[in-house]
This record gives sequence, structure tokens and C-alpha cells, in this order.
Amino acid sequence: MAVLVLLLCATPWVGAQPTSAVAVASSKSSDNSVQLEQHEQWGLLEVSLPGPRDGNPFVDVQLAAKFQQEGEKHVVNGFYDGNGIYRVRFMPPTAGKWKYTTQSNVNELNGKSGHFDVIAATKKNHGPVRVRNTFHFAYADGTPYKPIGTTCYAWTSQSAELEEQTLKTLAGAPFNKLRMCVFPKWYTWNKVEPALYAFEGTPPKQWDFTRFNPAFFQHLEQRIAQLRDLGIEADVIIFHPYDEGRWGFDRMTADEDDRYAKYLVSRLGAFRNVWWSLANEFDFMKEKRTADWDRLIRVVHESDPYGHLTSIHNGRDLYNHTNPLLTHASIQNGSAAEDAGRAVLYRDVYAKPIVFDEIKYEGNIPLRWGNLSAEEMVHRFWECIVAGTYPGHGECILHPSDILWWSRGGVLRGQSPARIAFLRDILATAPAEGIEPIDKWQVANVGGKPGQYYLVYFGANSPKKWKFQLPRHKRDDPKELTGGMKFHVDVLDTWNITVTPVDTVYTIRQPAEKDYVVTDEAGSSLNLPDNPWLALRIVRVPDH
Amino acid sequence: MAVLVLLLCATPWVGAQPTSAVAVASSKSSDNSVQLEQHEQWGLLEVSLPGPRDGNPFVDVQLAAKFQQEGEKHVVNGFYDGNGIYRVRFMPPTAGKWKYTTQSNVNELNGKSGHFDVIAATKKNHGPVRVRNTFHFAYADGTPYKPIGTTCYAWTSQSAELEEQTLKTLAGAPFNKLRMCVFPKWYTWNKVEPALYAFEGTPPKQWDFTRFNPAFFQHLEQRIAQLRDLGIEADVIIFHPYDEGRWGFDRMTADEDDRYAKYLVSRLGAFRNVWWSLANEFDFMKEKRTADWDRLIRVVHESDPYGHLTSIHNGRDLYNHTNPLLTHASIQNGSAAEDAGRAVLYRDVYAKPIVFDEIKYEGNIPLRWGNLSAEEMVHRFWECIVAGTYPGHGECILHPSDILWWSRGGVLRGQSPARIAFLRDILATAPAEGIEPIDKWQVANVGGKPGQYYLVYFGANSPKKWKFQLPRHKRDDPKELTGGMKFHVDVLDTWNITVTPVDTVYTIRQPAEKDYVVTDEAGSSLNLPDNPWLALRIVRVPDH
Repeated sequence: MAVLVLLLCATPWVGAQPTSAVAVASSKSSDNSVQLEQHEQWGLLEVSLPGPRDGNPFVDVQLAAKFQQEGEKHVVNGFYDGNGIYRVRFMPPTAGKWKYTTQSNVNELNGKSGHFDVIAATKKNHGPVRVRNTFHFAYADGTPYKPIGTTCYAWTSQSAELEEQTLKTLAGAPFNKLRMCVFPKWYTWNKVEPALYAFEGTPPKQWDFTRFNPAFFQHLEQRIAQLRDLGIEADVIIFHPYDEGRWGFDRMTADEDDRYAKYLVSRLGAFRNVWWSLANEFDFMKEKRTADWDRLIRVVHESDPYGHLTSIHNGRDLYNHTNPLLTHASIQNGSAAEDAGRAVLYRDVYAKPIVFDEIKYEGNIPLRWGNLSAEEMVHRFWECIVAGTYPGHGECILHPSDILWWSRGGVLRGQSPARIAFLRDILATAPAEGIEPIDKWQVANVGGKPGQYYLVYFGANSPKKWKFQLPRHKRDDPKELTGGMKFHVDVLDTWNITVTPVDTVYTIRQPAEKDYVVTDEAGSSLNLPDNPWLALRIVRVPDH
Repeated sequence: MAVLVLLLCATPWVGAQPTSAVAVASSKSSDNSVQLEQHEQWGLLEVSLPGPRDGNPFVDVQLAAKFQQEGEKHVVNGFYDGNGIYRVRFMPPTAGKWKYTTQSNVNELNGKSGHFDVIAATKKNHGPVRVRNTFHFAYADGTPYKPIGTTCYAWTSQSAELEEQTLKTLAGAPFNKLRMCVFPKWYTWNKVEPALYAFEGTPPKQWDFTRFNPAFFQHLEQRIAQLRDLGIEADVIIFHPYDEGRWGFDRMTADEDDRYAKYLVSRLGAFRNVWWSLANEFDFMKEKRTADWDRLIRVVHESDPYGHLTSIHNGRDLYNHTNPLLTHASIQNGSAAEDAGRAVLYRDVYAKPIVFDEIKYEGNIPLRWGNLSAEEMVHRFWECIVAGTYPGHGECILHPSDILWWSRGGVLRGQSPARIAFLRDILATAPAEGIEPIDKWQVANVGGKPGQYYLVYFGANSPKKWKFQLPRHKRDDPKELTGGMKFHVDVLDTWNITVTPVDTVYTIRQPAEKDYVVTDEAGSSLNLPDNPWLALRIVRVPDH
């Protein structure tokens, strides 16, 4: 179901005769570090071409390629990768033969053609993630995707050892999305000069913003490919305010910003696991105005023929997520995640998936955004989930070498990831459509799928008994909950990670027309353990 | 500060020589029931002209008038008022001499001119209400306006006795805004045929939607003028779903809707106390789509040269209040008003005043939107107020003749209005700029003006002691809260309507740079009575 947007070129397309392919179309590229896959649907195809080294290839040379299959045509921008090598990458939305022809203002790059034989997606390749069912997500092949994210903002600006350790940690962690910055951070616990910079020049401040450093981007791509192979979406943060002028990547001119954004998209767009996050805490970047963000969102959108998920994350001031170029609302607001009745409110105003990309972090730093207890972190996850929204994790536990997972990666030392893994397991068997509020604005702590599946979350309360009752989603739908339907209940201890089935099967009575809730025939209650952080999973039992 | 939008006429303006005024420009109109004021700024000027009675004057005749003063020019539409009389009304934004000239496609109405000598606003006339300070309101003369609304949806469709009783009740009630429908309601507790209908025809269903009934609108105007004279804003609801086809006013064609909206605006636009509410529960009107509402909002906007406050009120689905033609967000959501931490969230997404025009009603009806306790109603008012938003009242107490204040008016029998009056008194001496959250997303229960004025609301909690501490709004503003500043505290019992001054004057210590809150020098606590529904009013004491 991949929707591809045809990229409009400013210059008219020059028809090119198919000739024998002179381009290198390989699954292994010897001259950079990207690990290309076999040629498969939603894989990464790459055309490499030798070209001019003189002048400034980053600004002097335009290169694009048209990829086509019967009835389908996509134009993607290429880029200069240094050492006289130019590349065009393509993520084929379907299997079969894909022909390509290049277009360039440079003769030796123009009119080159060839083809790729693309096979169906294999193994864990489900394609890029798309919005599905208004508030939820699925991979392009229809497999549900329920984001359980974390943050390692600056993980690709660390030592090789630390980066490898981060990958190892992620391989055993529950997270399927990672927020990560392109540029390095200069911030408390983050005062490290990276090995590579995005531009040619001399650190910390002397940059030629017209010349990119291919090695920097090759490294970034290697890490994104490794996340892809771990089944993790890379929520790539294009700008952030944690530079504060040290390197000046936060205060480039509009032209420089645009050139950088286009170059980034031309390099990363063919990675199926890439999401675009225009910024972290966009409003803390005092050098940019709302109009700049509006423009940059457009630049990314117009450069990206794949329609990757796109968002922008706030500090104190929300961006207007009704912008149709944003696919979902990426929101920092810890307080909204404290209570499902708060979290649910954003759904109504945006009618898009609500991804709480910052709800404060488990940790022990003095700053109030980084010292949640693990219990509170897990609690917020459940509040967001029953509200039909998606929370994000982060960890700020002090470390003798200032290696906090939140930003630099390393190892997870908190108590919440194991409980978040439990929640992820619960969601894996929850309805594919996503958890929806059942009776929004009325019964905040119940989400699910009307008539089929309910999660009831009790938070810090420890009720001794719970009267079996299901809220009605639509009182005018007589099929939703009808007398005689049977339900099985599991008691979930979200902290102690236990699932305790309840022996009784509950048979509901026929609701009266005006009833807001439906009880079982006997009006039964069930006993609960004397713990906080309990939830119930109530699942319809088929009639026979 | 009135901002007037020049109404663009589809036909070019025909220059008319000033001649002696043949129009009746009077402060008393003998042929309808509108009570005109003296000619004063933001008063209602009216030009009456005799014209054709034949054909269909409502559709055949176009009439407008240009009102001008040096440097200012406003074009307003006129309307046919029956009996061969045409009128153009104008609300002058400034005092002085206002000349007018009419324009019409009918000779006898065209090119009529004259002038009004307009004096400065007198007595309680502060002009129309405008948005001020992003989230708040003020009258055009700068006087703060803090909406404390109620609903009597169908009050102008009742018997004369009941309508007079409603006015009498309002005269002694705390409300300065009233939500009211133009059309009658047919709904539980509202099964009454009105004396007048907006269109010519035979009830219940045979209407000529091309012919308005002037007597209906004259009556409506009389009631709006009476509200004006009581200092009450009329939040005029142009459409509503509580017809369900009985009369069919909820399912007119787009052309009929547009003609009705324009006629209404041409009649009511010159009343300074009018607000436009496109609908109550717009999404419950199944015959209209979002595009219809978008269009109708535009029609009202383009017909109204005064820029009256404009909103649209929801059932379950929010309208997109980021529409720049909407001046504020009119929201029904009872759950959002339960907690300041919820209420505050809408401010960020809309960056407009948030008016909770339905937070459920005090009452005892079986429907869950109409059986709040008085305590809960008052509690929600305070939660909304400390969140920097504006709540609305309503009362659904069962009555032997089905006269529920909520919709039909009559008398108030609930316990909340007296407490809401207390809140209104508190707000009367609160900062003119409006109550703002001090540390949004962190300290939900404190609103005010940083460094000057704080309301701390405790809700259902009954803390025995409260440690004196003020949240900081901006930690990087050293002037906001500086060591040595002195504060006076009143304990407000919002239910028992008492103000108890605390003897101690609290002198704050100098905050450290990173402190989120500031205590007094001694770290003192103050004792509180053992009641719920308490608040503190903490006001800066001038240095000498």
C-alpha cells in the first residue's frame, strides 16, 4: 500500500535512450559503508556513477534518476558521495523489473540507464511504516506497527565502541523506534567532540556549509541500516537546539538549511525505516521562526518521493500539527501522559496518530524532566496506550562517565524497559487496528476495540474488587454488546509482569437502550490483588 | 480599538451625491420593537427607508449603505423588515459625524444619504468584546471582559411571561454571556411550539425559505437588546441539531442556509453584544459536512463588517479551531474541565481563547451530561479558571412543567450560581490581562500573573497545611520573583463563599537559578481549614 509521490523536477525531464547500464548497481558497495540488501521490494537500490571532482560537486552538479515500471514512475534525487562518485538510491515499492535513466546537467552523468530485478520482500522486511486507521500505524505490507520508542539523541556521535554497545543493547530491548539527531549535541552530560562532522571544515566553527562530508553521512547510514536490521525505525531529527552556537549547525542560513535537508533526504530517503523529525524542541531554536519550519517541512516533503512519516517535536510551544504535510503529532508533554484523560484530548484536535515523544524520562538527574521513577514511566506508558496514543521512553540515570542512555546510548540500567517489553507483548496480540478509547471523555481508563477487546487500567489505585462492566462505544449500535456475549478476563500486573487468567467466563446481559455500561448477567465483581499498576485484559470469547 | 473589516460588495459602489436625508434616522423606531439607543459610539444607528412590497423583497432587493467618517469607510448590508420598510443598521466604532449613502438595485432605495452625530459611549457601553492577550478578552474600550456564561438555548421561543422571567433571573445572576439558539428546539423537555417562526409558512413543515418573518427577528432583536442592557453578551447559535426534521430548519439547502445567515447578520450585526456561534453540536447535524461549516463560517465572516467574536461548538468531534476566521475555541468537553491539567492543553493547540461552552450541567436528569452536583459544577469553574480558560454554566434541574434553565430559562434553582458569582467577584479584581497558567504542564493548579498575583486551587483535597511556595514562570527572568518581595494571602472558601485574610505577610527568599519554586525566607507553611474547595489568593504587596 505504499503511496509514492512523484517528485516534480524544476527542469523538464530529458528523454534518455536506454543503453547498457554503465552504472554500478550492486548489492554490495565497496566504496562506502552502507550495507545494501539484495534487490527486494522496499529494499535499497543504488546506482553509482563516476563523475566530476572539480568545482563544488555538491552545488554544481544536479543528478536525478527516473525509476519506472509499467504504469509507475518515480523520480529521485541523487547526491555526490565524494571521491568522484555520484549515487542515486531508490526504494522500490513493488517487485518486478525496475528500469532507470539518469538526468544530469553534467554529460557524463546524464542519460545513463539500466534496470534492477526486484524480488518480493523477504523475512522481516514489511516496508516503510504508514499511518493507518487515522490514529495508528502499519507497515506498507499491512503488518501492524505499534511504536514503542526510546531516545538516544546523539548516539551516532559517540565512539565506535559505545555505538556498538548501543546497538547490542537495542537488540535486546523492547524498542522499535529510536529518536536520533543527525548533528552532535553540546549539552550537560554531552560535552564530547564527535569524530566526524557533516560539513567540510575545521571544528568547532569553521565550516564550508556548501560542502558536505560524505564520511559523516556514510557513518550515519551504516547506523540507520543497522537499526533497520534490528527492526527499529529511525526517527531522524534533522535540527536541534543543543548546539547553542558551538558548531553553528543550529544557526545556518535558510539556504544552507534547505541544501542540507535536501542532501539528507537524497541520501536517507531510500531507507525504509527512516522517519523525518524536523526538530527536537523546535521552539527552543531561537534563530528560526515558524515560517522557517513551515518551509523546511515543505522542502523535506518535496524532496521525499516516498512520503516517509514526518513530524516536528516541541519544547514549550506546540507546532500546528494540523499542517497536512505532517503525518502525525510528535508531542513533548509529560503532564499529558500522566492521565489518559489528558492524553486523549490531542487525538480530537489533530485527527492523526499522537506520538508522545517525550513524557519525561526514567532517571535521577536534578532536572525535573529526567527523574521519573520507573513505576511512573511505566504508568505513563499505560495511560497513553489506553488513550489510543503512543508514548516514548528515555533514561537519564547518572553515570560516572556521563553516558546517559537518553542521549549517548550505551546500556539500559533502568527498571522500566522490562515492563515496557511486557506492554509490547500485550500489544502484539491486541487488535491490529490499534487500541481506541471506548467512551472518550467519559471513561478515560478503558481502551480497546468495542465488543471485542478491552484494556482497563487502574494506575496507582488498588481496588479490591472490580464490578464487571464494559463501557459502550456507540449506544445506537445494537451489535456492539448484546446479551449473551461472553468475555474472558486476564488480570495483568504491569509492574510484576504477570498475567493471571480469571476462571469465570462473564456473560453479559442485554443492555437497555440508554445504558452507558453493560454488566454481566449476575452483576458480578471480580477480586483483585492488593497491588497498584494493575490492568485487565477483557477479550470476547467466540460463541463456540 | 474596534477593528472593522470592509465588506466587499459584489457590485461596484455607485457614487451618490449627498442630499438631504430622506431616511428615518431615529433613536426610537416606531415600526418595530428594537429599542434603539441614543446615537453613541458602539450604539446602533438605523436608516429606515420605504421601498417596494411587490415580488419577493427578501431576494429581489439588494440594499447596502456606506458609512463614512474622515479616513474611515464601512459598507454594511441592509435588510427588508416587512411592511414596505427597509433598514440598514450600523454600529459606529468612533464618535463624531458619520455620513451615509445607500446603494440599491432599486431606485427608490438608492443614493439616499444623511448623517448621524455620534457621541462618545456612555454608561455601561464599553463596545463589542474582542480577543485580547491571545487567550483572553476585553471590550473595545479596553475594559477587561471575563466570560462567565450560561445557557438558555431556546429561551426566546417561550411564552412572553417565561421570557420576562428569564430576563429577571439574569438581572440577578452572575452571568455575562448567554448561549441562545435562533431556531426553536424540539427535544426532551423542549416540546413546545413557538409563537413565531423565522420563515413565512405553515408549521410544522411548510416553509417558504425565501421569505423571512420579520416579526420573528424583531422579537429576537428585542431580547438581544435586553441582554445588552443587562451587560450580557448574546452568543447567538445560528444552527443546531435539536430540530431533527420537525421544522426542517436543520436541513435547509446550502443556498437557504447562506441566505438565512446573511439575513441574520444584516439584522444583528450592529448589536455590540452579539457573538456568532455557527452551531451547537455541529457534528450532530448529519445533513451538513465539514465543507458546509467552512463555507458558513466564511459567509458570516464576509457579511459582518465588525468582526464579531465567532466560534463553532462541538458534540463529539471537534471542529478545527485553527481556522483563522474563528476568534476563539468554543468547546464542549466535560472531562477536560474536571482537571486544570486537561483544560490547559487546548490553549497550546489553538493559541486562542478557550471557552468551555459545555462542561456538563448542574442538575438531576438521568443523562450524564446533566446531573453534576453543584459542588462539581463550581469545581470545574475553578479548574478552568486557573488553567487560563473560561468555563460555562448550565442547569438541568427537573421541573413539573419541564422548564429547565438549561434550555428554556425561567428561574435558577441550583446551588452553583451563588458560588459562580463569588468567582466572578474574585476575577473582577484579578489582573486585567487574565489568569494565565504560571508553570503550565507542571503545576496545573496555579494560575495568575507571574510575580504579581496567584490563584492556587485545591479542589476536593483538604490539605491541613500548605507550604508557602510560588512556581516560577520563567527561570531566566530575574525580576519575576526576587528575594524580599512581599505577598499577602487570602484563603478563599469557594463553596462557603468566604475570604479569610492570613495575618502573615510572606517575604520570599532569593531563588537559586535552577529553582522551580520560591518559598518564603523561613520556609513557612500556613494552616488551612479542614474543607474541600479551597483556594488561595496570593497578591504582591507593594514595596512601600
